[in-house]
Formats: sequence, C-alpha cells, structure tokens
Amino acid sequence: MIPLRHYRQELELRHTFRLARGASDVRQTLVLELEHEGLVGLGEAAPIERYGQDCDSVARAVETMAQRLTPPLAYDSSVVSVAVPGEPAAEAAMDMALCDLAGKRLEAPLYELMGIDPSQTPVTSFTIGMDTPEAVAKKVQEAGEYEVLKIKMGSDEDREILEAVRGVTDRPLRVDANEGWTLEGAQSRLEWLASMGVELVEQPLPAGQLEEMRELRRLSPLPLFADESVHRAADIPRLAGAFDGINIKLMKCGGLGEARRMIAVARAHGMQVMLGCMVESSLAITAAAHLSPLVDHVDLDGNLLIVDDPFVGVTVKGGRLVLPEEPGLGVRLRG
Amino acid sequence: MIPLRHYRQELELRHTFRLARGASDVRQTLVLELEHEGLVGLGEAAPIERYGQDCDSVARAVETMAQRLTPPLAYDSSVVSVAVPGEPAAEAAMDMALCDLAGKRLEAPLYELMGIDPSQTPVTSFTIGMDTPEAVAKKVQEAGEYEVLKIKMGSDEDREILEAVRGVTDRPLRVDANEGWTLEGAQSRLEWLASMGVELVEQPLPAGQLEEMRELRRLSPLPLFADESVHRAADIPRLAGAFDGINIKLMKCGGLGEARRMIAVARAHGMQVMLGCMVESSLAITAAAHLSPLVDHVDLDGNLLIVDDPFVGVTVKGGRLVLPEEPGLGVRLRG
Repeated sequence: MIPLRHYRQELELRHTFRLARGASDVRQTLVLELEHEGLVGLGEAAPIERYGQDCDSVARAVETMAQRLTPPLAYDSSVVSVAVPGEPAAEAAMDMALCDLAGKRLEAPLYELMGIDPSQTPVTSFTIGMDTPEAVAKKVQEAGEYEVLKIKMGSDEDREILEAVRGVTDRPLRVDANEGWTLEGAQSRLEWLASMGVELVEQPLPAGQLEEMRELRRLSPLPLFADESVHRAADIPRLAGAFDGINIKLMKCGGLGEARRMIAVARAHGMQVMLGCMVESSLAITAAAHLSPLVDHVDLDGNLLIVDDPFVGVTVKGGRLVLPEEPGLGVRLRG
Repeated sequence: MIPLRHYRQELELRHTFRLARGASDVRQTLVLELEHEGLVGLGEAAPIERYGQDCDSVARAVETMAQRLTPPLAYDSSVVSVAVPGEPAAEAAMDMALCDLAGKRLEAPLYELMGIDPSQTPVTSFTIGMDTPEAVAKKVQEAGEYEVLKIKMGSDEDREILEAVRGVTDRPLRVDANEGWTLEGAQSRLEWLASMGVELVEQPLPAGQLEEMRELRRLSPLPLFADESVHRAADIPRLAGAFDGINIKLMKCGGLGEARRMIAVARAHGMQVMLGCMVESSLAITAAAHLSPLVDHVDLDGNLLIVDDPFVGVTVKGGRLVLPEEPGLGVRLRG
C-alpha cells in the first residue's frame, strides 16, 4: 500500500453551466496526494454523474487502488493493474499522481519523460456554454485571446445562439451537440453550420446510434467527432467509418496512459484526435495538456470556466497552451 | 543538425542461418552515435534486404535525418518528423539513439522514463534455424535455459525437423513459417503442429494473402501471428480477423515509439503481441527489450545467435530478460 490523502474541492463556475442535460453553478472534484520516497504526486478526479460516479465513489475507488499499489511504481503500467472497474475518473487521478511522482523523482517535466516536444502545443478552444443569444454573444466577447470557440448546442435556440456568436466574431467555431440531435434533423443543421464557418461538430446523435452515425457521416459536409460514443482505446475500431475523429478526456478513459493508447489507435484508423476535459481545476487540465502536442485539436478550458482555481499549472499565451517546466505535472497550489 | 557518427559492424553467426529465402554466415549492421549536450546516444540498424535496404541506404538515411533534427530532441516525436520513407531500420536506429540520449540526460533507464515496470519482462524464446534434422536436434540441446523454442520452417523437411526437436525436448514450441506455406497445405500442417505441442505459428502464408489468411484462421487450431504482413500501426486494423496476433520488430516499424503505438492498436483489436528481432547485436536487442513488459511473447534472441557480440546490455536469467539499470538503453561496448 502506498500512503494516500484525498480531499474534495469545490469549483465555482463563472457562468451557470447549461447543457442539454441540465445546469449547475458548482462542481466538486477530488484531489489526491500520493506519497512515495519522500515525494508527493498530485491527481484530480472530476466524477461524471451521467455514468453514476460521484466524489464518494471516487474516494472509495482511489483508496482501493492505493491499497493494491506496490513498488516499483511505473506510471504507464501500474494504474492498469490496480484499476477499479467503472471508476475511470478515479483511475485518471491515480494515473496523474503516478505521472507526477515519476517526473518529480527524475526532476524533469512529464513531457520530457514521455518524449513529447513542448513547443508543439496547439491552440486551445474556449467553450461558450448554452445560454440566451444575448448572454452567449457577451461570453464570446469575454473569450479574449482564444482563437477558436466551442459552442454547446442541443436546445431549440441553436440557430439564434450561433447567429448571435457570428454577429460578434469571425473566429473558427466548433459545435458540441452533446447527443442532442436526431438523424432526421442533423443533416440540414450540419449544412447550415458549414455555411456559418463551423469547422467540426461533436457527438450530434446519442451515443448508442452508431448505424445512424454512419449514415449521417456519409452526408455530412463537416467532420464529426465522437465524445460520449468513445471512452477507451478498445471502443475506437468500431467507430471507424462512423466518426472522423474522437474526443479524448482523461476522466472518461482513465488517465494519460490510456489517452496515449487512444491517440495511437485513432491515428491507425486515420481518425483525428481532440483532447477535451470536464470542469476541472488546473491540476487535471495541466496533466492533459502534457499530451496536447500529440493531438489535432485541444479543448482544455475546464480551468478557465471556474472562479478561484485552486491550482497553478499550464497557462495560455496567444491562445496556445504553455506547459510548465517544473518537475512532474508542474502543478502547485495557488498562493 | 545534430552531430552524428556511424560505422558498420560485422556480426558472425554461430550457425549458418537458413531461411525459406536463403542462407548466410555474416550480417552487417550500422551503429550510430548521436551527440548532443555532451552525451552520446547509441543506435543500431539491421537493414532488411527483402525490402531493398542495405548499410549504404541506411547510412544515407541517418545522415539525412541527423541534418533535419533540431532541438529540443523529444524521443517520441522527433523521429516521426525527420524520417526518410522506406528506411525503417535507419529510423529505428535514430529512434534508439534519441531514447538513449533522453535517458542519459535524466540519468535514468529508458524503462523508467517510459513508465514501464522492469520486473514484468516475459521469458524470451530461442530460435532454432532451419537445418538437417540431426543438426536441429543438436541446436535444441544447446538452447540451455530458454523455456520456449522457435523453429524456423518452410522447407520440405518440416516434419522431420519438428520430430527431431520433439525427440529431444518437451518445451513449448513456436513455429515461424516465413510465408512458406500455401492455404491448401497449411490446414493439415496446423493440425499436426497442434498435436505436437506447438503454441503458435507465425506468418504461414505470403504477406499479401489476407483473404486466404481469414479462411485459414477460421480453420486453425493454433493462434496465427503476422510478421511480414505487418510493419506499422496503420497496417493493423485490416489484419484483425486474419491474424490472432502480430510480431513487432523495431527494424520493420521504425523504432520504439511506433512499436508502442502498435502495441496499443493490437490490444484495441483484441490481438496478442510478440516482440521480435532481426540478427542484431545487444545494442538493438536491448532497446527492444525495454518494451518487453508490455507484450505477451518475446523473441529477442538476435544477439544470442552471433559470435563476439560487440555490445553488452540486456541479459537472460532463467530464460527471462533482465533489463540493465544504467541510464538510457543501458548498453555499452563490450570489454
């Protein structure tokens, strides 16, 4: 057993977060401190309610995993061998903590351990949550240096929202439909979105509708990305032909190791890769950012959507991610 | 441009190497010394004649790659960006040298940078080349501590050779047919091999015969592994259903980075993974051995088949690979 502490942190949202599935003002995540050889590895879990997870289930899962861990700690293999089924956010937090420990042990940033070139980070998009057309237009103006905007859709006001956005900016747009459309309605929406300068659309149909997705993709003028349809690497082969790309999130897949495997599998199938997130502090966002030079599109803005981020790590300069040079994840408590 | 030296080394074979495609007593490989920040990264290329490569073409390719390299050197991404098409052995040598440099820079063994648990190395098989039945039986007796033997087949004497092996050992056997069979002949051979305690068969049919392989796999009592049919990660999706597993070789795929991606892709397709080699010194064999904890079967004996191995690195204890603990690849010139 490796000594583990964990605690909850409340993340207050800048704007009430409206999605096709509901709204909220505050999110809870669980922070881990895994201690080994005099060093502390940090991790963060943002449980996904939709899949029956909460901070309690995550806390139980990380305790079980810490009990199962035995040295030597190998950041790419240890999590796989101790994982608790059904708790990928817990697995992701433990994976991050092991990555952080490995980097601190070798006194080098995680990207260097992994052989990743930190100068190749892409621009990150900034998410505009669902709201009234007026409020959405205001949020766009606040998005400042971000070169790409992501618009959450799935309501009856989709057209008005997008028109409001286009009224205030000509930046490239990505649209996340969050499973909110039907095959019948999706085709004309996609054509209209293409005419509005949208560059890609995430998860237009509900996760289970793979046959419908194949049909939609044949007709779509825009690249279609899987989000709810893809969790881990083994999901990807059956998505080839149904989607043009995948959105990888650490909280869905169980950590950086699985995320890298997913990138490899998507590439082998000629699919594009986006790196996304949940509402998370700079701890988990920075962990994901270390992989960003390996992907095509980055949507790592969970930490930008909250007030009083408890952690400091990755920053954004000219819309591009800047990885911290400190050992491990390069994350520390603010202040 | 990163300073690079390279030289040829002659590897004399213990036994004349007979394959379905020919025989030879000596192999040439190219050794690289890549210099950066006062450190030297080592790599080795074993060109594959079948694919039109030799030490001259490898030398030209590594010089081109060294000219294209610019700091920061990132061992997982730099090779991809400078690779010369059609020269995977050169790419593998450059990849190794970058891995070696990265480990030496952080003063840690490569497996630790990669987050791989060195205690999980599998047993390695020992290859018995094609020869007369009497000579094969003698080679088996020399195979000492190796728990698994690999028999090269593809001649008219296949039955006599295997019976001679079974006459002197009850160890598990793997068979490599090196594309030597036909669909018609393969089925009865496979049934007979299964009855002789063979655990898997590599590349029974020529590389291009994928439809025939699908048919053979439906009838086969033994797992069938792709060797000549698979080079890189992007080859794997179309092999699912035609093979049960793949044999990854650094000289075919272009290095450790691509090898890891191949492992991920094969796993996502539910396929098994073997790590193989060409005739190579302990330099390239050790590089591959760092990945061995990630695979199911290991056939890394290229350095055991030669006299006067110029390098020292990975060793074998009780048939199992033992990774060196020195920084980087952990390889040095002998003596």
